Amino acid sequence: MRKDFGAKPTIYPEPVLIVATYDDDGTPNAMNAAWGGIHEDTEIGLCLSPEHKTVENILKRKAFTVAFATKETLVGSDYVGIVSGNDVPDKFERAGFHAEKSDKVDAPIIKELPLCLECELKSYTEKNCECIGEIINLSIDESVLTDGKVDLRKFHPIIYDGLNHDYLAYGEKVGKAFSDGKKLK
Amino acid sequence: MRKDFGAKPTIYPEPVLIVATYDDDGTPNAMNAAWGGIHEDTEIGLCLSPEHKTVENILKRKAFTVAFATKETLVGSDYVGIVSGNDVPDKFERAGFHAEKSDKVDAPIIKELPLCLECELKSYTEKNCECIGEIINLSIDESVLTDGKVDLRKFHPIIYDGLNHDYLAYGEKVGKAFSDGKKLK
Repeated sequence: MRKDFGAKPTIYPEPVLIVATYDDDGTPNAMNAAWGGIHEDTEIGLCLSPEHKTVENILKRKAFTVAFATKETLVGSDYVGIVSGNDVPDKFERAGFHAEKSDKVDAPIIKELPLCLECELKSYTEKNCECIGEIINLSIDESVLTDGKVDLRKFHPIIYDGLNHDYLAYGEKVGKAFSDGKKLK
Repeated sequence: MRKDFGAKPTIYPEPVLIVATYDDDGTPNAMNAAWGGIHEDTEIGLCLSPEHKTVENILKRKAFTVAFATKETLVGSDYVGIVSGNDVPDKFERAGFHAEKSDKVDAPIIKELPLCLECELKSYTEKNCECIGEIINLSIDESVLTDGKVDLRKFHPIIYDGLNHDYLAYGEKVGKAFSDGKKLK
């Protein structure tokens, strides 16, 4: 038997995206967003409502970065989702984040977050909060690479469980894509 | 030190979305998509290129469902991402899936996948493969609920690791959203 829950925006797994921007005077800001995903070959899509300081910054600077929250940065990553840069101008610093200017786009890279998409604004639509970024570069801190590939023993992204408001770690490898299904061919 | 990887569409965690549709004569079809996310309050966004049988079906039926692949259905979920319904008309069955007609939209619910978003087509844009669905209902099989809430001891969604082509399980709870960050306030 199935139970109906109505029009609930639910996805498993749900990401914990940390969107970072600069404001007018170069102060870095960050927020936490769960609604987003890869939009096209080199685009990321995010749902960001217009009252966010981040959106004000994106519209001015035409750029942002998207990083993925980790177990090690969980407290700071949750924090930037609780307070607004409009109320707490130094929230980035309070979160324990340090900014490094991207040399590809006009936005900060958060040093504590190993994977980062450096994006240029492609479009923002206020009506449906849709922010599309052109991915210019994926940069990865060498500390989480093994033989040039991301190593999940070193990189620990977290998952948001939106129905229960929990953060979860990744578990073990359970299969191989483009391969396990061949058993059925 | 950071290493540059160029314009790589990367997200952690990346979902394994199983999109199900009916074709003209009522044959159910399913595909596996990694690029997508919640688009707005009651919308899901998917990047689906137009050559998919799924897209043909969506445009005709104006509806689809989105379910989340699980550890138990990993082989079938991978399989529907390997072969096309254009070549293998009974791929749905071969994947081990059984269809139940949604009573809310004109699309099949896959019985083997406990969580399902029943969606009406809102828009499809061929140029950028953007498929937006209005979420009409989230239905959940009671077998994965405890006290009316999703229980991850019973429901085992998988994660796609697009950089390594692996499927991964969820791990342990590592934090509480809207709560852990308050330590920094």
